[in-house]
Amino acid sequence: MLKGFRDFLPPLEITRLGLLEKIENSFRLFGFAPIDTPALEYAEILLGKGGGETEKQIYRFKDNGGRDVALRFDLTVPFARFMAEHRDALALPFKRYHIAKVWRGENTQRGRYREFMQCDFDIVGSDSVASDFEILLVMKDTLMSLGAGNIIIRVNHRGLFNRFLDRIGIAEKSAEILRVIDKVSKIGAEKTSEELSALLGNGKAVQLLDFITLRENFDETLKAMTEASGPCPEAERLSLIRRFMIETGTESFFALDPSIARGLDYYTGLVFESFLAEMPGIGSVCSGGRYDNLVGLYTKPNAGQNLSGIGASIGIDRLIAALEALGKLRERSTYSKAVIACVKNEDGGRSQALAETLRKENIPCEVSFDEGKLTKQFINAEKKAYAGS
Amino acid sequence: MLKGFRDFLPPLEITRLGLLEKIENSFRLFGFAPIDTPALEYAEILLGKGGGETEKQIYRFKDNGGRDVALRFDLTVPFARFMAEHRDALALPFKRYHIAKVWRGENTQRGRYREFMQCDFDIVGSDSVASDFEILLVMKDTLMSLGAGNIIIRVNHRGLFNRFLDRIGIAEKSAEILRVIDKVSKIGAEKTSEELSALLGNGKAVQLLDFITLRENFDETLKAMTEASGPCPEAERLSLIRRFMIETGTESFFALDPSIARGLDYYTGLVFESFLAEMPGIGSVCSGGRYDNLVGLYTKPNAGQNLSGIGASIGIDRLIAALEALGKLRERSTYSKAVIACVKNEDGGRSQALAETLRKENIPCEVSFDEGKLTKQFINAEKKAYAGS
Repeated sequence: MLKGFRDFLPPLEITRLGLLEKIENSFRLFGFAPIDTPALEYAEILLGKGGGETEKQIYRFKDNGGRDVALRFDLTVPFARFMAEHRDALALPFKRYHIAKVWRGENTQRGRYREFMQCDFDIVGSDSVASDFEILLVMKDTLMSLGAGNIIIRVNHRGLFNRFLDRIGIAEKSAEILRVIDKVSKIGAEKTSEELSALLGNGKAVQLLDFITLRENFDETLKAMTEASGPCPEAERLSLIRRFMIETGTESFFALDPSIARGLDYYTGLVFESFLAEMPGIGSVCSGGRYDNLVGLYTKPNAGQNLSGIGASIGIDRLIAALEALGKLRERSTYSKAVIACVKNEDGGRSQALAETLRKENIPCEVSFDEGKLTKQFINAEKKAYAGS
Repeated sequence: MLKGFRDFLPPLEITRLGLLEKIENSFRLFGFAPIDTPALEYAEILLGKGGGETEKQIYRFKDNGGRDVALRFDLTVPFARFMAEHRDALALPFKRYHIAKVWRGENTQRGRYREFMQCDFDIVGSDSVASDFEILLVMKDTLMSLGAGNIIIRVNHRGLFNRFLDRIGIAEKSAEILRVIDKVSKIGAEKTSEELSALLGNGKAVQLLDFITLRENFDETLKAMTEASGPCPEAERLSLIRRFMIETGTESFFALDPSIARGLDYYTGLVFESFLAEMPGIGSVCSGGRYDNLVGLYTKPNAGQNLSGIGASIGIDRLIAALEALGKLRERSTYSKAVIACVKNEDGGRSQALAETLRKENIPCEVSFDEGKLTKQFINAEKKAYAGS
């Protein structure tokens, strides 16, 4: 098998499908609809605005017809192409989910796989605060349904952050600043402080570090941020989101964290990351944000207006690793809850007739195929960890 | 978008997922376990025994590390590689299903897509008649669960066929004979007769045409076949399968059809094709057979013994086309059964709180995001064909 790829044997695949089914069920409960796009696209579409890193990692080749094609490396760029192509056929706002594989020729030494699954969900065509809040609620409900324990979703607002930078006169360095802040959990507070001082001078660096400091709670943090940035629509929006959290009794799942940056250029509004309360160290298991112009990601923007939206992506591989480390995975090799032993080969018909009565009640049931010691048949059944055993 | 590829918008994707969920549920009811393998493999593995046709259609290229890789064109060869690699980790007999995409650079003028989904299920490591029958029963239950009306599964036995060829002295031409017979439904009886006469001479051709003729019913056909081939274990096996059909009350779904050939070389025992009673003309929607040596498909057979098995594959695209033509598809763009209209933007929290009470009961429920004429919100809801409307 190719380096960086892997097979999924039944125990791992049953685990993965179990999580995906819960995720998908949660998306559907919110009215998100599934779509699919091809694994292969024209390379120029996928590479549209990708930087050097994407170019190095993408699986790109000439097909038998001489076309310059590539395997998708995420689900966002294909979604931009999809929206540009089909927007007339879709009622806006459009809420879609897409669960599919992507491929990146990453350095496998970092424990990453070159084929992995992404679970993306987006609302496009609405800039409403209600759609901001819905994405947060989908994240909370979906992650809580996975049995990984409590989760905490850290939110921030890019627009509010930019207002603050503007106010203290360092807006033109916002891209570099975001990049430094994005690394804070990796490089630590001290190193961040050094890098910011080098970039902005000591005084501004101290102001910025104060701005990104968590206060006692959501309201206190929002108050401090608003004082630093000045009153603005973005602060009002966060305040309304906070009210929605309280009205839905979900406030304990959320924190306002001004240090959440999300490196990607195209986020313009709310940004967020999610962590497992019992295992924050593995990093965010679901992240995303609001963008002004999805279709702009695509190299050939169609004539129409921009499509704003908000979306997030769940990292299923990281979640599986976390659930395993937390001892919350139950390994099994089968969905069967019953097995009918085989005493004589000629009984195959009657055994199946009996099994069918269970299957009609939606109870998974196997029959053994070959005569043999009953002990051995029982051992086999135990090995597979029958759900009923 | 690339020629021969397509996007799945919500109505089609909801249809496809609905069928796949039924198929998967049926596989699980029989104790089949899911696996997954990488989309990309070393080209030499995939091309192992493939002929010229495969070579022409496969997406093959050099990756960034200079490896000669290709996208899988079916799920059978990757499964052979999987079994060679993991057999020690698996209890035999091993029953797996694999629902995944494959890619072939086929001629799109024939209405085929270059990316499509296969649903394969196999039992390996048992040569028992009980496993033969189970595969047939899985096919019947699964296809009947799809709501495409009655189905008919036509079975034959390669071994019995070969005994007959041997008996009348034309066994050495079996490969050519199979190829001609495999086309009979396409080219018609007259053309078949001509081709067989050219290949075998008139006398043998007549004998062969008589052998592949359907009689009044399963038992009569089996009797005629056995008389022509002579009594043998293969005839006894078919006879036992027939008894299992009667014992499970499923005999009306099956026909013994000595003209079912299945072109592929590696089938050695039972072979079968399935047709929709209301639309036999679209061809087989689920086909397969028994093979002696799965791992032999893979270029580097490991030291161990052969793995015999039996398997089949469901053609989901053909089924969707058939269901559509039969008017048995219900188009909808959402799973939602309820929508909460938005009167004031500030109500977002309370609307979601209400929606959550429905979602907790597993009732999919959306909230509208933006203030606007209620009529328009109702029209949008109707457009999406809410399940509850």
